[in-house]
Amino acid sequence: MSPSDKKKLSIISFSGDFDKLVAAFTLACGSAAVNYEVNIFFTFWGLNAIKKKTGRRFTGKGILAKTFGFLMGGVNNVPLSRLNFFGTSPKLMSFMMRKRNVATLKELIDAAIALNINLYACEMSMHILGISKDDFIPEVKEVIGVANFLQYSEGGDRIFI
Amino acid sequence: MSPSDKKKLSIISFSGDFDKLVAAFTLACGSAAVNYEVNIFFTFWGLNAIKKKTGRRFTGKGILAKTFGFLMGGVNNVPLSRLNFFGTSPKLMSFMMRKRNVATLKELIDAAIALNINLYACEMSMHILGISKDDFIPEVKEVIGVANFLQYSEGGDRIFI
Amino acid sequence: MSPSDKKKLSIISFSGDFDKLVAAFTLACGSAAVNYEVNIFFTFWGLNAIKKKTGRRFTGKGILAKTFGFLMGGVNNVPLSRLNFFGTSPKLMSFMMRKRNVATLKELIDAAIALNINLYACEMSMHILGISKDDFIPEVKEVIGVANFLQYSEGGDRIFI
Repeated sequence: MSPSDKKKLSIISFSGDFDKLVAAFTLACGSAAVNYEVNIFFTFWGLNAIKKKTGRRFTGKGILAKTFGFLMGGVNNVPLSRLNFFGTSPKLMSFMMRKRNVATLKELIDAAIALNINLYACEMSMHILGISKDDFIPEVKEVIGVANFLQYSEGGDRIFI
Repeated sequence: MSPSDKKKLSIISFSGDFDKLVAAFTLACGSAAVNYEVNIFFTFWGLNAIKKKTGRRFTGKGILAKTFGFLMGGVNNVPLSRLNFFGTSPKLMSFMMRKRNVATLKELIDAAIALNINLYACEMSMHILGISKDDFIPEVKEVIGVANFLQYSEGGDRIFI
Repeated sequence: MSPSDKKKLSIISFSGDFDKLVAAFTLACGSAAVNYEVNIFFTFWGLNAIKKKTGRRFTGKGILAKTFGFLMGGVNNVPLSRLNFFGTSPKLMSFMMRKRNVATLKELIDAAIALNINLYACEMSMHILGISKDDFIPEVKEVIGVANFLQYSEGGDRIFI
């Protein structure tokens, strides 16, 4: 079976919310586990999920990019889409995920990489936010725009999370 | 025409926001009404929509699960995705829906059941939140994971709301 | 090639958040640019994107509709899905988009019109919110319900943003 015969699922990961990232990566890993070809296209706040784990926030060039950088704290600083309890909820949910032996977000991202899920970063968002490919983990395959996303996801489902 | 020849639409109902639930059920019921096979897979906050109407919130085992249970008030306690006006907006929107003779969320859920829409609950979210199938209305068909969701939704569109 | 042979992408634009509208229109315009047939179905808060630029908010009939009208400020008053910084973030992001030579939301909407993207408004949301077709820009093609949306989007992907 050639790669192009595989079922395909492509996720546009727009939200940087902790729970939505967990949902996106769970769907992605579960699909890859049953032999789907999976693409994740990170855009806007979703870029937080593929940020290098340096402990530093994104620091675009210029004061405006820095202001947005403050909102882009990386995967360890993503909020919950609901009541965020001043930053405690994601920690609480992570704790419960560990307690219940459910993979945490960090483990899900590692699993996605191990399962050869294709990780793409959105060129336009990076441009607006003033960040570069060097800000991302090396497993990010390519920086692409809408045309390439459409091409890579052609023939499968596209889901916006 | 066999069931597998029907057009198919599968909704991942992730959000517990009142307006998004209204959108999800309107799309689901409208699709079932024109003879689509419709699946709704409730996950995370979306599980609120299929909670038993006991007036009680989800009460998982343990203090942490209870804390999240506080966020899971069931379908009568879901907030609006926008300015929630301290809980009045969903009531206001419900009032307007009744006034305009538009089906309310409760009526939409009843319609979904009458239209034989398949309601599924996400195993992993329930595990994290410490809730069980007994917490749901009896019309919930099955508790499933990603692999089964992919199988049941195969051949149709998948929409994340 | 007849129109029906074209690849097709249909977006349900539910959110009135500035960043999600930018994402929706970027995806829409990028798809139309590579010859996709593109439909956008505006519902709930998404209707803000196609509001006439009169400077006035939607003003439904009756006090309740007016209350919701307050949340529907039109495309110049849409908030950011994340920390809104009391309304400054969309202005800031617009400024950065201009600075980086990325099309602004207003330009993206103009581009969508120039690219013959089909703009539809959701009948039910308009009914709930008490607004009429006259409140929209004239390029809105038709006011439709779920059945027509399914028909027009048949054979392509459907994405909820």
